[in-house]
Amino acid sequence: MERLKNLVRSQQFSRELLEHLFLLANKIRENPGNYRDVLSDKIMAVLFYEPSTRTKLSFESAMLKLGGNVIGTENAKEFSSAAKGESLEDSIRVVSAYCDVIVLRHNETGASELASQVAGVPVINAGDGRGQHPTQALLDVYTIQRELSTVDGRRIAVVGDLANGRTVRSLAYLCSKFNNISFTFVSPPNLKIGDDIKEHLIEHNVSFTEESDLNKVLPRADVIYMTRIQKERMTAEDYNASKGLYVIDESNLVLIRKDARIMHPLPHVEEINLPISVETTDARVAYFRQAENGLYVRMALLHHLLGEK
Amino acid sequence: MERLKNLVRSQQFSRELLEHLFLLANKIRENPGNYRDVLSDKIMAVLFYEPSTRTKLSFESAMLKLGGNVIGTENAKEFSSAAKGESLEDSIRVVSAYCDVIVLRHNETGASELASQVAGVPVINAGDGRGQHPTQALLDVYTIQRELSTVDGRRIAVVGDLANGRTVRSLAYLCSKFNNISFTFVSPPNLKIGDDIKEHLIEHNVSFTEESDLNKVLPRADVIYMTRIQKERMTAEDYNASKGLYVIDESNLVLIRKDARIMHPLPHVEEINLPISVETTDARVAYFRQAENGLYVRMALLHHLLGEK
Amino acid sequence: MERLKNLVRSQQFSRELLEHLFLLANKIRENPGNYRDVLSDKIMAVLFYEPSTRTKLSFESAMLKLGGNVIGTENAKEFSSAAKGESLEDSIRVVSAYCDVIVLRHNETGASELASQVAGVPVINAGDGRGQHPTQALLDVYTIQRELSTVDGRRIAVVGDLANGRTVRSLAYLCSKFNNISFTFVSPPNLKIGDDIKEHLIEHNVSFTEESDLNKVLPRADVIYMTRIQKERMTAEDYNASKGLYVIDESNLVLIRKDARIMHPLPHVEEINLPISVETTDARVAYFRQAENGLYVRMALLHHLLGEK
Repeated sequence: MERLKNLVRSQQFSRELLEHLFLLANKIRENPGNYRDVLSDKIMAVLFYEPSTRTKLSFESAMLKLGGNVIGTENAKEFSSAAKGESLEDSIRVVSAYCDVIVLRHNETGASELASQVAGVPVINAGDGRGQHPTQALLDVYTIQRELSTVDGRRIAVVGDLANGRTVRSLAYLCSKFNNISFTFVSPPNLKIGDDIKEHLIEHNVSFTEESDLNKVLPRADVIYMTRIQKERMTAEDYNASKGLYVIDESNLVLIRKDARIMHPLPHVEEINLPISVETTDARVAYFRQAENGLYVRMALLHHLLGEK
Repeated sequence: MERLKNLVRSQQFSRELLEHLFLLANKIRENPGNYRDVLSDKIMAVLFYEPSTRTKLSFESAMLKLGGNVIGTENAKEFSSAAKGESLEDSIRVVSAYCDVIVLRHNETGASELASQVAGVPVINAGDGRGQHPTQALLDVYTIQRELSTVDGRRIAVVGDLANGRTVRSLAYLCSKFNNISFTFVSPPNLKIGDDIKEHLIEHNVSFTEESDLNKVLPRADVIYMTRIQKERMTAEDYNASKGLYVIDESNLVLIRKDARIMHPLPHVEEINLPISVETTDARVAYFRQAENGLYVRMALLHHLLGEK
Repeated sequence: MERLKNLVRSQQFSRELLEHLFLLANKIRENPGNYRDVLSDKIMAVLFYEPSTRTKLSFESAMLKLGGNVIGTENAKEFSSAAKGESLEDSIRVVSAYCDVIVLRHNETGASELASQVAGVPVINAGDGRGQHPTQALLDVYTIQRELSTVDGRRIAVVGDLANGRTVRSLAYLCSKFNNISFTFVSPPNLKIGDDIKEHLIEHNVSFTEESDLNKVLPRADVIYMTRIQKERMTAEDYNASKGLYVIDESNLVLIRKDARIMHPLPHVEEINLPISVETTDARVAYFRQAENGLYVRMALLHHLLGEK
């Protein structure tokens, strides 16, 4: 198994490496004390060119729980402000000198790829525009394995904004490493999944269909992966045409199999409309456990990139 | 004595618990080395929905001095931005998975109460709109005890914006745990203390009066607690009507008893107008020591919530 | 040798102290493990009233690598916001209680001087408006020594915006501690070096000339110190008159001596226009090593101010 030097794209993961990281995540979870100091002389720099508090806090917590330290900014745009105008490559080369790993969130697709070419330290892509978000995909697949024992053979319904979500792109790439996965894509007409992803799935023999009736899909799915309509990446017209079209609420929750799971990368808004009492007691609601899983796969990834013998 | 699980309101403190925390604060102050590692495997998340640099730095320093770690954001509003629109409860549930305690500053009254109901970890209210700011009250009362030996029996003049200040609300609630406190409230006509606080004081047999002449009040008070007119929470008209009405300066400093203390939650603006030479030599000026006391009561509180045997 | 209590101005460094700090920086670089815990019970507060991500990250990394902890804000302007209006002195007095050293970046000249007068802990000036930036000068001179073995006798061409750059001011002050330095200043007519700096150099017997033809200067210089035209500190007219006037690119790189060095405080924009392949292989390109040197001199400085026996 080859050790990763960076994490830029979901395609970098081999099946073997995924299973290694999931096993490592489980070990860390069970015996956190064994890992408390493994990165004690390491520094992680968190460079966020757009806000993503949840992702930032999750990475920071992961690093600290391994004994490491964190520097960073929520304000990285200042590097490239009109006034100063430094290139991303130069910013990365300078910051490389101050840390052992860079976690980069950027508004432009390809930013992490560019950064990884000039950085003297590993770069982790924490989301690049409409591009990818590979640690989100990692925690998604880890969650499926943890909740349902296996990923192979699962029928996954992916619902919502499939045009703008890098989450969906990264998830599709990662699932193609497993056997007999089948996807059903359910999205408003104006937010359908891109051709590049379909081609990737065809090339890797992953079967998929597109459906418009969510309630028809629910009884067949092992995983219902809901996503948010990304208002901030579309026109008001497009938003109004798609908002509220696909919702999980108490009326269609009954259609979902008892052993299925509802996932969501969070934050969710109206596309999931369940009372707190259901969210906290119904085992099918997996999205808060999914968010917690993010901590452990990020710990595993950081340990793998920086310390693992 | 019951251990606190959260700190949302000043009313949660019993007299016994207050004395326990003040004693603990003193012990930590005298022997910081004994407490350097007590929270070494703990993470505090600092979620600020509105800026309060002073409070943030004080909590962070407290946590680090106990060996703990800190994650956080000054940018928590991003969670609930128009674009993403996540509920506070969901944000708190997710962040709970990444930390051992949440320090929450929010612009809406009741936010900490709500957060504490869903969080899987203790929540500390670091100010919620016009609601409360219980660690401020804690450090205020600790300061009175430290400066004047006892809190019982003290005559406390509270001066300034009594309508908008959560500081005053929390202080009044906390003082009602002590015996024979008497308050004198001095405020511009448009910024008088609210009826809810008066009712609380009456119910708890705390005597109080309202006065309009500050100079008449000064010679009788043990503590003169000044507050800032909160320009940002009122109309320009209201601000201009009250700004500069009640000021401590060299002309009325002479009216204050030698063994009295001038307190202020800081920042102060024109309501205290003393030269630096007086501020640094006159023992009655207690507000910088008061700010420092905040560090020790917050250390005591964090230790109590998270580690204390 | 007198130990520094603060670092506000480059003039505070004696030659002896400079050599001590450079030696210490080298020792730390060679044996970082020996210094991993020297500041383990210390807290550094980073107060930035204007953004400077690079400087902030460099100081934070330096403190963490010495075992210390960091609190801080990129948002320090909030202290002095119109709504709250606290004086800098009061902010500093309060923050002093929470930390062991303050790193201050401020938009107003003289801010660090003022802060150092009231702080109960050491203050490090990390840039004050058009004033100074003494740790930048420290890393600049350390870089000259490291790259060229000696600072004495060097011919230094300083190019670009010499009117607005605090970097140039601090560098000139620091170089006057060495022997037989000669400066050549090359700047657009509207951005010439200030009379105060010239007077300082005359007073300290440092020779200097002003030139308008960069290409005539290049073959004679040991160090070509390029600076950015600071768009944000001038009118659009002034910017357009000076932008692009002095540039290092492949056409004039050949004029630079093989053993000379190109330095820059970074970020650079169009004033350096070299392909990445040249930047990474041509030994004369020193500016990324210069940025890395900043880490080690800041470690040396923090250790000197806080811990060194």
